[in-house]
Amino acid sequence: MRISVLGSGIVGRTLAARLVELRHRVVIGSRDPGQPHISRWVRAAGELARSGTYAEAARSASIVVNATAGTATVDALRAAGEAELAGKVLIDVANPVSDPAADPPLMRTGERSLGEEIQALFPHTRVVKALNTVSPSVMVNPKRVPGGHVAFLAGDSRQAKTMVTGLLREFGWPADAIVDLGDITGARSMEMLFPLRQRLSRSLGHTNFNLGVLHA
Amino acid sequence: MRISVLGSGIVGRTLAARLVELRHRVVIGSRDPGQPHISRWVRAAGELARSGTYAEAARSASIVVNATAGTATVDALRAAGEAELAGKVLIDVANPVSDPAADPPLMRTGERSLGEEIQALFPHTRVVKALNTVSPSVMVNPKRVPGGHVAFLAGDSRQAKTMVTGLLREFGWPADAIVDLGDITGARSMEMLFPLRQRLSRSLGHTNFNLGVLHA
Repeated sequence: MRISVLGSGIVGRTLAARLVELRHRVVIGSRDPGQPHISRWVRAAGELARSGTYAEAARSASIVVNATAGTATVDALRAAGEAELAGKVLIDVANPVSDPAADPPLMRTGERSLGEEIQALFPHTRVVKALNTVSPSVMVNPKRVPGGHVAFLAGDSRQAKTMVTGLLREFGWPADAIVDLGDITGARSMEMLFPLRQRLSRSLGHTNFNLGVLHA
Repeated sequence: MRISVLGSGIVGRTLAARLVELRHRVVIGSRDPGQPHISRWVRAAGELARSGTYAEAARSASIVVNATAGTATVDALRAAGEAELAGKVLIDVANPVSDPAADPPLMRTGERSLGEEIQALFPHTRVVKALNTVSPSVMVNPKRVPGGHVAFLAGDSRQAKTMVTGLLREFGWPADAIVDLGDITGARSMEMLFPLRQRLSRSLGHTNFNLGVLHA
């Protein structure tokens, strides 16, 4: 598949590298694709990888991953362009954290999650919130965490969620680990897990952890 | 021990009943302690139970449980009185949900959790956020959920958290299920779990579930 990853930070590069490893064609999109860390990444990733502007990245793929910082997401997606994103599946892995170093981190407040906001701004794009609840290394390699831990999904399109489920399976998530929280408003539940993640990360001293859902 | 439970809704009555079962002396506090459902509850609970105003309840106990609705908590605690609450441990099990029927539920937003707000308003009371992340029946009987699921705690006083841990152990929580998220700012992580709980409750069709923390 042709998959674009918007954002060249640690989340974007980790996802893009894993997608290349799985033999997908990947374009990493950035505001400034000429940045040295991106060129280095493309050279290291090999022939299936390239870089481009947000718009070039969006244009070249049927699945677009939003791995930009939550505060920069809307600008990045506007730069990608509504027309370029129309008809595509957008996997939103971002957290709307205005200051991740704050303790607790400052989350964008208000009555709408970032996932919902993206879906409202880009009505012709099928937004699926996914993977924002775990660290980048766990996103692409869930076996780093032992036991029955989960990957939540939320989105209005069943078909898009099925497509994202397929990608998660490729990453190594077992079918029964994928928990569908319903329509895109479920993104709020997922984004609100960020402060818990920060606390657990500090008390455990690493990020190889995740939540499980235990039930009767 | 003498324990007061502020709030006579399902959360308060469930906690109070379990505390009586464990042979604690319990006062259930209410704005209007003469309400028929409270009198009925007291008669059924037996000689260790009584009811009173918020102030009477706070005065008579060394541990006070806030089981009022999140939107009513500050008024209820003000009615209990700063002097009556001074020197006591306050276990805050409330969620700051302005409309629990909304979908997703509308959480009070802003940059401070209810737990933090209570601690700031009542500086001579040791506030411990606990149990707000599970249903009332799981709070007092964690065995309803199989497997290794957790009870989070947050609070500034180590001693108060040790006391609350003791109570959780009495309820049946195993020692290794109790996860300390640090000072009272950790309450934000815990309160933000409410929308996830609503979604999971709907998809599972019951409330006998909880989160586990899986880690390497």
